[in-house]
Amino acid sequence: MADFDLMRRLTVAEGGKIILLVMDGLGGLPREQGGLTELETANTPNMDRLAREGSTGLSIPVTRGVAPGSGPAHLGLFGYDPLVYDIGRGVLEAIGIGLDVGAGDVAIRGNFCTVDASGNITDRRAGRIPTEEGEKRVELLKDIKLDGIDIQIAAGEGYRFAMVLRGEGLNDDVQDTDPQATGVPPLPAVASSPAAERTAALANQWLAAARERLRGHEPANMVTLRGFATDPNLPKYADVYKLKAACVATYPMYKGVSRLVGMKTIETDLHFSIQDEFDTVAEIWNSYDFVFCHVKYTDSRGEDGNFDAKVKVIEEVDAALPILLNLNPAVMIITGDHSTPATYRAHSWHPVPTLLWAPGTHMTDRAQAFGERDCMGGALGQFLAVDLMPMALAHAKRLVKYGA
Amino acid sequence: MADFDLMRRLTVAEGGKIILLVMDGLGGLPREQGGLTELETANTPNMDRLAREGSTGLSIPVTRGVAPGSGPAHLGLFGYDPLVYDIGRGVLEAIGIGLDVGAGDVAIRGNFCTVDASGNITDRRAGRIPTEEGEKRVELLKDIKLDGIDIQIAAGEGYRFAMVLRGEGLNDDVQDTDPQATGVPPLPAVASSPAAERTAALANQWLAAARERLRGHEPANMVTLRGFATDPNLPKYADVYKLKAACVATYPMYKGVSRLVGMKTIETDLHFSIQDEFDTVAEIWNSYDFVFCHVKYTDSRGEDGNFDAKVKVIEEVDAALPILLNLNPAVMIITGDHSTPATYRAHSWHPVPTLLWAPGTHMTDRAQAFGERDCMGGALGQFLAVDLMPMALAHAKRLVKYGA
Repeated sequence: MADFDLMRRLTVAEGGKIILLVMDGLGGLPREQGGLTELETANTPNMDRLAREGSTGLSIPVTRGVAPGSGPAHLGLFGYDPLVYDIGRGVLEAIGIGLDVGAGDVAIRGNFCTVDASGNITDRRAGRIPTEEGEKRVELLKDIKLDGIDIQIAAGEGYRFAMVLRGEGLNDDVQDTDPQATGVPPLPAVASSPAAERTAALANQWLAAARERLRGHEPANMVTLRGFATDPNLPKYADVYKLKAACVATYPMYKGVSRLVGMKTIETDLHFSIQDEFDTVAEIWNSYDFVFCHVKYTDSRGEDGNFDAKVKVIEEVDAALPILLNLNPAVMIITGDHSTPATYRAHSWHPVPTLLWAPGTHMTDRAQAFGERDCMGGALGQFLAVDLMPMALAHAKRLVKYGA
Repeated sequence: MADFDLMRRLTVAEGGKIILLVMDGLGGLPREQGGLTELETANTPNMDRLAREGSTGLSIPVTRGVAPGSGPAHLGLFGYDPLVYDIGRGVLEAIGIGLDVGAGDVAIRGNFCTVDASGNITDRRAGRIPTEEGEKRVELLKDIKLDGIDIQIAAGEGYRFAMVLRGEGLNDDVQDTDPQATGVPPLPAVASSPAAERTAALANQWLAAARERLRGHEPANMVTLRGFATDPNLPKYADVYKLKAACVATYPMYKGVSRLVGMKTIETDLHFSIQDEFDTVAEIWNSYDFVFCHVKYTDSRGEDGNFDAKVKVIEEVDAALPILLNLNPAVMIITGDHSTPATYRAHSWHPVPTLLWAPGTHMTDRAQAFGERDCMGGALGQFLAVDLMPMALAHAKRLVKYGA
């Protein structure tokens, strides 16, 4: 269990630099009984060398048996127990589509729905409209104004959108307006505590305006709001770890979670190649103690069920790895946030192959390559993801002794 | 750590079926330095195949270094942290000798003792009378009546017995009547809180009647009562795991613990062979999602110090295993509740060989057979027994993702 009081007490501001390279959904399963996993199949001479020289192990993202979403999985890797820091869905949804959630903001998930002439819901998901239809509706909603409140809104996948309210005195203790049923009208936003009454009133004012603007735009002619959530006000990297930290990622979700823990998110493009990402790490390297670099497509190909394509992404990472190794990090960690076996086509609970390479401080185990089976007997054992950051800091000589 | 709120949130009512086969006291030690353990010695082609195909590991029953009794050891396997769910001795003793403990009941352990003419204890264990002498005394006590209370009583080993009181308004907050000394009379039952005063009064009424009935039956001419405990009201399998669960076991203790967690206990006979037990699992298989099947004699032969006989029990289990495998469970787990090395002749703290076989979802490790050494580098690592159920549910596709 991460213990931030302990970390605050033991961390020092000087020490080696750390790269945390996360291949999303890295862990896998063999295609057939007796076969190799994606990582075991991939030709990865660079990672295999690091595995032979350094420490390997298996990371448990949340707790044994539990498959995490991307938000909790990254929080774990960042040292924040995902069972303790349970971030509201509204915040994750907003972050995931690129909205900025700051202290005091209230983030909300929205669904487009269909209502009939009397205002009763006939379809809670507006006939599952395609994303571009949702984007058009969001354009209609963008100019709704609320007194003293700054509103960000953006379309998500299909019938989904997210919204962030920013202003004084907001509070997220507001109930969902989705009645979870058809044949009834959407519920009004209701405050569950007095402190949230103004926020509920603002939400209702916004809903009334949205109804006007969406009138006639069937099937998405109304909205429901869910998952009101505020910035979780997480302890920040500079405070708990004394690290100047940066994030190089292309997808909004990972930038967003990094921002929640106080990392600087470096500007990137969704179309960056792996090599582009690594080059970006190299460009900013002199200005940071810690760089988190995120590779998305291992997970995407796993979710596609495309074993060979996932293997290929891993091989691309390996081929580009010298760009990072040439920076001479004191600690290089390569892992995943969770497993996404191509055979399973979804996030899974399987523990994730992890290597920690820190010349001069790492233990060497018997791993001969970077793969699930080699990691099983490794020096890191099986560990909870939240324990990774203390290990990284220790190997970078950034932790002092505990007690005399 | 088991987290039932998390399990309630993540479990779904559909998914694969699970068999949890527990060979009591399975773990062992080599007979001589350099030799093989009982499980490593046994010829177990079926289990070896499952170990080669699936995941292996070592289960820590309670916490490292702690040898558990059967009650806490099974609670752990069932997902209930035995350090949190510390079930009163009265309940375990009563369950262990086959009494039924239900909600609101108060279970009590009893000892026969010897008192002199002035009523002072001369022997707290009545000269360690043999079990059949205890059984005769229990017959004398069976017809004691208490107003509005249903009394179950049964003899245990030697000078021990257990009793269950059932009725309105009972409370277990009553102190032991064993003074833990000789030369003084037994203590009266004293309530530690006002709510238990009626129960204490009933106990004293029963003790007075017992003294009359045992008069002249030296050396067991009086009793003391200890460990007043009520049904622990454990969360039930249907609630926390959404599982319809059954127990196939021959000994009362294991049926009792299963009943405490809400499993249906299937009728069996103490003289059932292993094959009879497995046939019973097959008979009820269509009606349940989860079947716990308990094999007692691995532990018994370990406690006897009979290495070869324990090996033979393991081989019998392996030979009968096709009966279970033919049911095509989604998840088959084979483990023990604790170790009982024949060389140690007692429950021990050694972590317990465990295999989890779930074609399509299991990881494969390098184990070539089911045995202590092969399990050490396995995909499950070393894990706390309480983490086994979440893993079983995950492999049966009965857990949804945590967070977005």
